[in-house]
Amino acid sequence: MSRKLRMGMVGGGEGAFIGGVHRMAAALDGQIELVCGAFSSDAERSRRSGEALFIDPKRVYPDFQTMIESEKALPSDQRMDFVSIVTPNHVHFAPAKMALENGFHVICDKPLSFNLEEALELEKVVEKTGMLFALTHNYTGYPMVKQARAMVKNGDIGKIRKVVVEYPQGWLATKREDEQSKQASWRTDPSKSGIAGALGDIGTHAENLAEYITGLKIKELLADMSIFVEGRQLDDDANVLLRFDNGAKGILHCSQISAGEENGLNIRIWGEKGGLEWHQENPNSLIIKWLDRPKEILRTGQSFLYPAMTPPEVANAHTRIPGGHPEGYLEAFANVYRNFAKHIQSLVAGQPHDPMYDYPSVSDGVRGMKFIYKVVESNQKGSWVEVN
Amino acid sequence: MSRKLRMGMVGGGEGAFIGGVHRMAAALDGQIELVCGAFSSDAERSRRSGEALFIDPKRVYPDFQTMIESEKALPSDQRMDFVSIVTPNHVHFAPAKMALENGFHVICDKPLSFNLEEALELEKVVEKTGMLFALTHNYTGYPMVKQARAMVKNGDIGKIRKVVVEYPQGWLATKREDEQSKQASWRTDPSKSGIAGALGDIGTHAENLAEYITGLKIKELLADMSIFVEGRQLDDDANVLLRFDNGAKGILHCSQISAGEENGLNIRIWGEKGGLEWHQENPNSLIIKWLDRPKEILRTGQSFLYPAMTPPEVANAHTRIPGGHPEGYLEAFANVYRNFAKHIQSLVAGQPHDPMYDYPSVSDGVRGMKFIYKVVESNQKGSWVEVN
Amino acid sequence: MSRKLRMGMVGGGEGAFIGGVHRMAAALDGQIELVCGAFSSDAERSRRSGEALFIDPKRVYPDFQTMIESEKALPSDQRMDFVSIVTPNHVHFAPAKMALENGFHVICDKPLSFNLEEALELEKVVEKTGMLFALTHNYTGYPMVKQARAMVKNGDIGKIRKVVVEYPQGWLATKREDEQSKQASWRTDPSKSGIAGALGDIGTHAENLAEYITGLKIKELLADMSIFVEGRQLDDDANVLLRFDNGAKGILHCSQISAGEENGLNIRIWGEKGGLEWHQENPNSLIIKWLDRPKEILRTGQSFLYPAMTPPEVANAHTRIPGGHPEGYLEAFANVYRNFAKHIQSLVAGQPHDPMYDYPSVSDGVRGMKFIYKVVESNQKGSWVEVN
Amino acid sequence: MSRKLRMGMVGGGEGAFIGGVHRMAAALDGQIELVCGAFSSDAERSRRSGEALFIDPKRVYPDFQTMIESEKALPSDQRMDFVSIVTPNHVHFAPAKMALENGFHVICDKPLSFNLEEALELEKVVEKTGMLFALTHNYTGYPMVKQARAMVKNGDIGKIRKVVVEYPQGWLATKREDEQSKQASWRTDPSKSGIAGALGDIGTHAENLAEYITGLKIKELLADMSIFVEGRQLDDDANVLLRFDNGAKGILHCSQISAGEENGLNIRIWGEKGGLEWHQENPNSLIIKWLDRPKEILRTGQSFLYPAMTPPEVANAHTRIPGGHPEGYLEAFANVYRNFAKHIQSLVAGQPHDPMYDYPSVSDGVRGMKFIYKVVESNQKGSWVEVN
Repeated sequence: MSRKLRMGMVGGGEGAFIGGVHRMAAALDGQIELVCGAFSSDAERSRRSGEALFIDPKRVYPDFQTMIESEKALPSDQRMDFVSIVTPNHVHFAPAKMALENGFHVICDKPLSFNLEEALELEKVVEKTGMLFALTHNYTGYPMVKQARAMVKNGDIGKIRKVVVEYPQGWLATKREDEQSKQASWRTDPSKSGIAGALGDIGTHAENLAEYITGLKIKELLADMSIFVEGRQLDDDANVLLRFDNGAKGILHCSQISAGEENGLNIRIWGEKGGLEWHQENPNSLIIKWLDRPKEILRTGQSFLYPAMTPPEVANAHTRIPGGHPEGYLEAFANVYRNFAKHIQSLVAGQPHDPMYDYPSVSDGVRGMKFIYKVVESNQKGSWVEVN
Repeated sequence: MSRKLRMGMVGGGEGAFIGGVHRMAAALDGQIELVCGAFSSDAERSRRSGEALFIDPKRVYPDFQTMIESEKALPSDQRMDFVSIVTPNHVHFAPAKMALENGFHVICDKPLSFNLEEALELEKVVEKTGMLFALTHNYTGYPMVKQARAMVKNGDIGKIRKVVVEYPQGWLATKREDEQSKQASWRTDPSKSGIAGALGDIGTHAENLAEYITGLKIKELLADMSIFVEGRQLDDDANVLLRFDNGAKGILHCSQISAGEENGLNIRIWGEKGGLEWHQENPNSLIIKWLDRPKEILRTGQSFLYPAMTPPEVANAHTRIPGGHPEGYLEAFANVYRNFAKHIQSLVAGQPHDPMYDYPSVSDGVRGMKFIYKVVESNQKGSWVEVN
Repeated sequence: MSRKLRMGMVGGGEGAFIGGVHRMAAALDGQIELVCGAFSSDAERSRRSGEALFIDPKRVYPDFQTMIESEKALPSDQRMDFVSIVTPNHVHFAPAKMALENGFHVICDKPLSFNLEEALELEKVVEKTGMLFALTHNYTGYPMVKQARAMVKNGDIGKIRKVVVEYPQGWLATKREDEQSKQASWRTDPSKSGIAGALGDIGTHAENLAEYITGLKIKELLADMSIFVEGRQLDDDANVLLRFDNGAKGILHCSQISAGEENGLNIRIWGEKGGLEWHQENPNSLIIKWLDRPKEILRTGQSFLYPAMTPPEVANAHTRIPGGHPEGYLEAFANVYRNFAKHIQSLVAGQPHDPMYDYPSVSDGVRGMKFIYKVVESNQKGSWVEVN
Repeated sequence: MSRKLRMGMVGGGEGAFIGGVHRMAAALDGQIELVCGAFSSDAERSRRSGEALFIDPKRVYPDFQTMIESEKALPSDQRMDFVSIVTPNHVHFAPAKMALENGFHVICDKPLSFNLEEALELEKVVEKTGMLFALTHNYTGYPMVKQARAMVKNGDIGKIRKVVVEYPQGWLATKREDEQSKQASWRTDPSKSGIAGALGDIGTHAENLAEYITGLKIKELLADMSIFVEGRQLDDDANVLLRFDNGAKGILHCSQISAGEENGLNIRIWGEKGGLEWHQENPNSLIIKWLDRPKEILRTGQSFLYPAMTPPEVANAHTRIPGGHPEGYLEAFANVYRNFAKHIQSLVAGQPHDPMYDYPSVSDGVRGMKFIYKVVESNQKGSWVEVN
């Protein structure tokens, strides 16, 4: 393809956090150009946002419906190629469905939707339309997460026995939603966030990370959800026991009231032959523990990362700069965009997409929504529930 | 007191691990002298062990009964002051009871006993005889654990909301009990270890640590115990959800199949105002996380550790050398011995014992046994159980 | 300004490393657009590179002279605004001089030039033309480096006594220049690199970082340079003692033969009241050590980073995402581009440039070249030399 | 030997720091018994100290001369076996010489003596008398230091190219010697400490560590010593460039004004094939860096530490408890005592001493004194000096 891909954006106007992240992630590799957007449900706000982003004013739209219709009417050499949806949870479904049904690929922030019904329907729409759909479970975009997955697949640590995945944050330890925090407000509001709070916001990242690296599926779970901050309506903490489909046991806990924590997603996995450990706040290191030899530290960008592995060098295929030059959150996020863009380019070129350049799919999103529902169910029952 | 305390030992002969630890811990501060022992149930082995320890052969006994009777018959200026019991779990009760009833103080390895009945009876014997009893939950002997407890008590981190205590080990990831490992053999044998494996061996340390630092009691729990190594009879892994008596939630997990882990006991506690984090393998640092200011690292031996606290300077009262000179497992273990010895000395001198110099008691041991029983019960039922 | 700035690039074609870094850094914030380039001294290679970058073929030039002349001839609403120079050291001077003299701002990779004479002349050209000039000493673009500088300036750690700055790398521990490594080849070739090897390549980063954070100037130095890999012509290791203009002492050492090291730039500074420590491979943490209170860990993106400081919140002004979402090398590099772009925009708008958004200047480049010359001189003499 | 060794002590009375360390180190393994002492130059103070240590009052002496004479007069089955000297530097020589000449082995705190002349004479006395002499350069007693030395000797990291050894402390950042600190007073007093301050107190530890691990000798050095705290007479900071006898280069720096540092001795060594890194404050880890494979972390107590090495398993021979049970400063110090005691026992038994159980000798002490003199000389001259 001799041109950049053209992106339209829904949401992400002034004051938003994740919209800017998506834009930086899309821009980083010089493969994607932001050409249009419906940046806010407030038309004037959308206009101002578009101006600040140097978007042609004619392509700054008052709402996503107008955007999709107008872009569809443009000549194919101008029309956007895909839509990026960066709105709160309750505004994922409608624009995603409409975009897909009008021939636009979609990349969407997580969780997939407001509720499970929407998720299941979206999965069908994706299947029916044949359009591409990416969900920004961005943490699986880190090179060392890819490395971990490849090592597990390769059998390096043997059959997995135990998984502990944690996601502590502390930013909602006080009632921030009463302090004009836009981020806190919608996340703690059941009408926007859905049936779960911390669990939906970050617990699903943890669930996705665990299943992605291990290749296992959670089969049963038992949950204890809490609301610690008085007056809050949704969980701000959840502890979950896990049982995986291969017999492995696990623990997942997430929290937004863990005072003093930043964004502490981390995972430890133990197999019959060794263990893996990865911390999102120190993302360029992957710790490997062995039964009979010293612990090793693998690092992003090293030249000797498992050259014999199949697929080869997956970590380096997701790294931009040499070892010791730290890559972070935005680079991992950009890997999701880069791989999604690669898939679109392959599609356009009529070539097969290399599965090494993977990204989270609508099915991962459905799985996340099911996870939320099962955790809530188990918490209500106080007993183990099956996850199908 | 113008003399060293005289110690007798039950167990700890050739090939034992924990006996040597107890002896080094007792010797470190020059306050205690090992004068006699029944080091093995094999009389010849006991004799050889006594010789290697430079013990007067007349005071190396073939069994604990003989030791207690013989020592009792000695003049008071020669007789041992207390007994140290370092045998496997199933040989704690009998020597402890006999020693107490014959006027000897007792310091005993954990867990307290083979089963709950013994534990409850031992508690009564201690009460009835008025003798002193210490249980070597040695991890609470670390200065930074004392510091953490003092800070919680002082309200520094506010009301506690969440506790995560972990104890991963990897040394039983393979079937070591089939490889002539004395340590592995009795720990995996229900006739010696009791109804639990990893949970009894190390899970009780985790439980004790959590309750010690927080001052809270576990009120309800839900457990998922596993046996991962084929042919093993007792749990080698356990995941437990906790609910504390103040409404806090928690997670405790312990494992001896976490490949590549050494002795990774650690605890994180989050309160309304901040969080605490401590790792046994890096014991001289205590991490304090705050809502509104930078994370701090407190270190063993620092001169400015909360001088205004009541009781004052508890951490420094349990530190032997200046900051930056690492103290470790043996020093923490020695703190239990040192504090127990101080209590004996106070008793002899007819003076009150300063509560700052605390050590785990028979009640802590009873609590540990109850914890084991409740975890096993919950695991069988698959539901929450109350801990009384 | 209602448009993106337009950038032309000299160098950075196929196989280059730093060119891609500059492009990602320029693209990240959506303020700069790459519109033209002379990507290689090989015209066909330049053409292919331009195509891969989606550049209009008419603006892919065979050499920098043609680029500067052709762009100058374009209407002002199409013409590039500034030139990015990413060639090896010996090709910095000519394009920079020509661009400046033809009315283009310049951002240039470090070190400034091939030799000191060029550096001094470039400084004069910048002054004479009044154009803006940025040198990509990118490590000073990290938020926590800005934070450290602000804290020193604020007197937080008192008068500085000692500075230790280190830059160990290991990638030239073997004779990589014989293995078709383009990066290794020119760096070890005196006809391209100049009079120094490791010292010029990375030692100048260390020197710049130390002077930037402390606000001090190196006044005297004593150096011991080494060539460890046989057959190499330029230093691959250098140890330097420093004396600063306020009486502080210091050590700077850099190495490219420190086997197993990645990109270990780090600095420790001790003042009368406390110390600072920063590691480039863990760039989001700044360690603060105090005389009378616990060590603190400041982190990128924290809301409470010295709000009372003047200028306020310099670290947060250089941070894109919340705490706990790691930012890395590219983000720091992008800060240099962003601040340079801000300055151009202020200039165009006729407004003053906020000095908080600083970037390394041509004078920093001259200082770096002087440093190189003085280290080489001291090494030859085996004695202390003054740095003026 | 069927008995404990009997130790007499010179110094280490009330208020002393290092005396208590020596006593705990001697006591830890149950092989050594403190039987007598001249604990202070103040006879009453000596008496009180002896009482607190439960020493037979008849064997608490008013001065070292009386002690040596009186003990010599005792029957051989009561007489002390060796003397431990724990006084300030200026009181090392006289008791050491007298003890050796009267048939007592000596273990002495470092540095060896007040000046070089004393050191050289002591070396002769040791040689002449044939008595054993140990110097407590305790840091070489750490298991991971032994491991590092064994790996270097084994050629694991290839020919050594660069050594960086650091010893930052901060406790003399203010004028503590004016605040009734006994420790600070004598160390900053030339009449007690000798010609150097920080350099003698801790710089010699760094020198000893570097030469011990590498097996190399410092051949040339260039030093820059400083006095930062006004009114102080001896150096409180020193930066030294090193050249080793194999062509390797190095840096040694030590400081007692590095605010906020505790006891930060650490060393990094890079050879042609890899690098080693060890930090005294985290002593149970040894980091190994390789050219072509991941970094490894070796840990005290691991079962797989280089079984094929000659001598085998040196680290484990200096470790008391299993991996993950942290050993610290006292255990390392106790290794010096344990190995010294082993040597005495071998001597008594007429058996050869296993060189694996090594300890610092009088020659190490002489070397340390020479190092001090050469650093001072280089600092005065401002140029390189040879170390013979």
